[in-house]
Amino acid sequence: MSKNKRGVFPRKIKGFRDINPELNQLRTKIITKAAEVYRKYGYEHWDTPSIEYADNLGKYMPDKDTIEEGVYSFRNPENEPVYSNKGEELRDNDNSVIMENHYLSMRYDLTAPLARLYSEKVWQSYMQGNLTEKNIPLFRRYQFGRVFRYEAKLDPGRFREFWQIDFDTVGTNDVSADAEACMILSDAMEAIGLKRNTYIVNVNDRKILKGFLKSIGIFKLKIEDDSKILQGEDLEQAILRIIDKVDKIDLKGVLEELGKGRTDTSGAKIQGLNLPDSIIPKINSYLSAFENIKTRAEIIEKLTAFNIKDVIFNEGLEELKKIDLLLKNIGYQDDRIMFTPTLVRGMAYYTGPVFEVNSLQTYKDHKGRKRAVGAICGGGRYDGLVKNLLGIKAPATGASIGVDRLAELLMLTNQNDDLEDGPVFIVMFDDNLMPEYQKIAAELRNAGIETEVYYGSQKQLKKQMKYADKKNCPIALLIGENEFKDGIVTVKNLKLGKDKSMQAIQDRNEWQSKIQKEIKRENLIQYISKIIK
Amino acid sequence: MSKNKRGVFPRKIKGFRDINPELNQLRTKIITKAAEVYRKYGYEHWDTPSIEYADNLGKYMPDKDTIEEGVYSFRNPENEPVYSNKGEELRDNDNSVIMENHYLSMRYDLTAPLARLYSEKVWQSYMQGNLTEKNIPLFRRYQFGRVFRYEAKLDPGRFREFWQIDFDTVGTNDVSADAEACMILSDAMEAIGLKRNTYIVNVNDRKILKGFLKSIGIFKLKIEDDSKILQGEDLEQAILRIIDKVDKIDLKGVLEELGKGRTDTSGAKIQGLNLPDSIIPKINSYLSAFENIKTRAEIIEKLTAFNIKDVIFNEGLEELKKIDLLLKNIGYQDDRIMFTPTLVRGMAYYTGPVFEVNSLQTYKDHKGRKRAVGAICGGGRYDGLVKNLLGIKAPATGASIGVDRLAELLMLTNQNDDLEDGPVFIVMFDDNLMPEYQKIAAELRNAGIETEVYYGSQKQLKKQMKYADKKNCPIALLIGENEFKDGIVTVKNLKLGKDKSMQAIQDRNEWQSKIQKEIKRENLIQYISKIIK
Repeated sequence: MSKNKRGVFPRKIKGFRDINPELNQLRTKIITKAAEVYRKYGYEHWDTPSIEYADNLGKYMPDKDTIEEGVYSFRNPENEPVYSNKGEELRDNDNSVIMENHYLSMRYDLTAPLARLYSEKVWQSYMQGNLTEKNIPLFRRYQFGRVFRYEAKLDPGRFREFWQIDFDTVGTNDVSADAEACMILSDAMEAIGLKRNTYIVNVNDRKILKGFLKSIGIFKLKIEDDSKILQGEDLEQAILRIIDKVDKIDLKGVLEELGKGRTDTSGAKIQGLNLPDSIIPKINSYLSAFENIKTRAEIIEKLTAFNIKDVIFNEGLEELKKIDLLLKNIGYQDDRIMFTPTLVRGMAYYTGPVFEVNSLQTYKDHKGRKRAVGAICGGGRYDGLVKNLLGIKAPATGASIGVDRLAELLMLTNQNDDLEDGPVFIVMFDDNLMPEYQKIAAELRNAGIETEVYYGSQKQLKKQMKYADKKNCPIALLIGENEFKDGIVTVKNLKLGKDKSMQAIQDRNEWQSKIQKEIKRENLIQYISKIIK
Repeated sequence: MSKNKRGVFPRKIKGFRDINPELNQLRTKIITKAAEVYRKYGYEHWDTPSIEYADNLGKYMPDKDTIEEGVYSFRNPENEPVYSNKGEELRDNDNSVIMENHYLSMRYDLTAPLARLYSEKVWQSYMQGNLTEKNIPLFRRYQFGRVFRYEAKLDPGRFREFWQIDFDTVGTNDVSADAEACMILSDAMEAIGLKRNTYIVNVNDRKILKGFLKSIGIFKLKIEDDSKILQGEDLEQAILRIIDKVDKIDLKGVLEELGKGRTDTSGAKIQGLNLPDSIIPKINSYLSAFENIKTRAEIIEKLTAFNIKDVIFNEGLEELKKIDLLLKNIGYQDDRIMFTPTLVRGMAYYTGPVFEVNSLQTYKDHKGRKRAVGAICGGGRYDGLVKNLLGIKAPATGASIGVDRLAELLMLTNQNDDLEDGPVFIVMFDDNLMPEYQKIAAELRNAGIETEVYYGSQKQLKKQMKYADKKNCPIALLIGENEFKDGIVTVKNLKLGKDKSMQAIQDRNEWQSKIQKEIKRENLIQYISKIIK
């Protein structure tokens, strides 16, 4: 070790961040407004732990096959029995219970914990043989909170801890619930403050993608990939993962990756999937068929015109038709919710309709380049997820708003509200007057007005006013020995001082007389109440 | 391994729990009300990550000397440089940067992360030599969220993940800030719904305890403890930890533990601290001096009458006098905030005034025994905590409300609000009518009314009504083919059906006619709005 000794200095873990009052205000607004919309559709507020047994969270990270990748996991300090699928303790040859420090994982989303919550709720009933796929109970909840992802590479604006607010319906096959999810996302965006036509809910159906890929013969192929054979659903997932990148690498990049591979902007060689030459033009013609189509009706027409005889494809098409009908009937037009037959969504667990909200707004980055914020919400139907844990199918659908991504969008496009006013600020002039300062503060608080007495060690007036300014205080109260004796308080209107109308005033005395007034102590509370409200 | 194979079944980690809508309603209320009070005193909302570098959180768990005990820690998957106290990368003899997978810890409270946040904010300024103890900036924030403790033994109602809502002022020596903390705790309790005289804010000053122990010669003692010598502040902390147990083991138990040890209710032998026989009666006379004293003024009199000539003791006494003066001046009387010279508070980092809120209410446990909920809030002055990370002193004070403990108290004493109404419930009679159900739902939502259309697979009316009842739905709408043709809707008032006034009605038809009405479709929204509001 070097001449310096190992030490400690204050810092956050890389990829984690502190949230200041301004961002908290925005985050609180997003969560509150989204929750109000979710409640309006009958969802109840549930909450689950931040960490779960790793095996209960499953293997469903986007683009990842194993839970080890991308998830913070560690061993439980507590030694516990190992169980069978039926929840029985396993025993070794000596008949003693096998003990282990189980792996725990910090949750990477709120959907996997929902599957655990639901499965646990109905577990008893299932074990007693009273639960079948026919009588699986309905459960609708919303939940918000932090999720954690260990991303090896951190792009700007991406974090390893971020917030989501989700709603889900478990126990329904009804595609009406999927249509509802789209309406909810649209309502929530507008409740949060996004203007109509600045966002779009894009909808697809995984069955359409699956059916199309089946119709062009994907499920009959065997592809050699790193001396491993890719086929069936694994090959389907591999193709979908590449199609999913279309926003990042464009159609050309997608086609190259499906074929022989490509070279990215940094010059790195990206391996291709090596699909046969006969297949790629078919995928190309599908992917490019929907450009410049502006209505759901035209998309349905186009999909119908493909005349694909695959059962799954047509199931998906029927689902989109039903969704369109319901939306049209209630008045959700193409400007809010649109069909996008190329949409994939990353998560491997989706089985039917999938949805995503994209902002149509752009912003300029620090180099002046026009940039788009990616998807701000995502969701879909996942009929198989609960089965992995429970043993029987519980069809489900739902979606998630990326709270931090949305907050970032609102800030980058200057749609966040102004920072709320801070407290009325009582300047600390004289230690002996502290009881009087406290008394005024208590009276103001009783009148419902936020008030702070300055306790800092930096007593210079200039420092105190700088502190008040930083906290966005609307008013400062100044009381020295003389004011106290005379029964008056100097009230400085800091908010008015920042007002544009005040900047035109040239005369210092006039300016001063407008923002600073001497008020009689007995009239103080009433006077301030009037300014604040 | 046995005949059963290792499996997965749905379950939470031991000591963790799911939160249902009722408890979430209560938790949300506690957090919202407390935050409103904190804001009224000028505290701003900040947030920090759930996990931190272990070395940044320090070693301040109650009753624990090491961070390993009681804290969930694990190694960062990311390999990172090792740093000196000044934040410089350390290098080995080959001049390459020394890399390590640092230990990360899940936060065990919100105070240690605050010390990190504050230190990090002023770090640059400190490194540039611009920061001294004289010009340390003032910082006041509130924060709420989950904290995690790996408690080896889990008492009923205790959890390993729970919520706190904290407020703190860093950068002030002024004991007015401590007085304010007591007022805030009292205000918050009442804002949350605790009635006056059902709770008490207990206040002490660590300086009084330290000064008293010094005056009886503790700091001159050397005590052999497990072949280790206990003396100075370590001995002081050991004595305080035992005094802190007085609520659990009574005065007798405390005195025994200070001396030769005791046998607990289970028959286990608890080792004593083996203080000399001359010391224990002095501690006894201090601890028993304050029983049945009902006012702060009398406590101050009593403490003065001890006539202890120790500087630290008298500093503490002066602080309590100043706190009393401020509180009296604003009208916080002895029924809300009381002095308790035997109060310790667990955390080792407290250096001055300490406070704790206790409920004066009891409840009956499942065996009918009268029980008290322990402390529901705690806090105090911690002038040394920031110094461990920053290198210079930043005096600080603050407190924390144990959200889950308080929620438990409100439930056990039946002071929680009724569960909020669920959504208006639209019964699913006929798949073909789904567009009509959705249309009614959309109209109700537009009128501001929460509404749910049933999507479950269990379509029997009885099952649907059971679901609606479980969700506390106030109204159910029934529309079959005939109602639809006739342009009417059957409205069932579920809330009225549960009303006591209805139970007196014997006649089934009369009862039915009151809770169930046929309403014309065109009048439906107006009719329901009237009932709901």
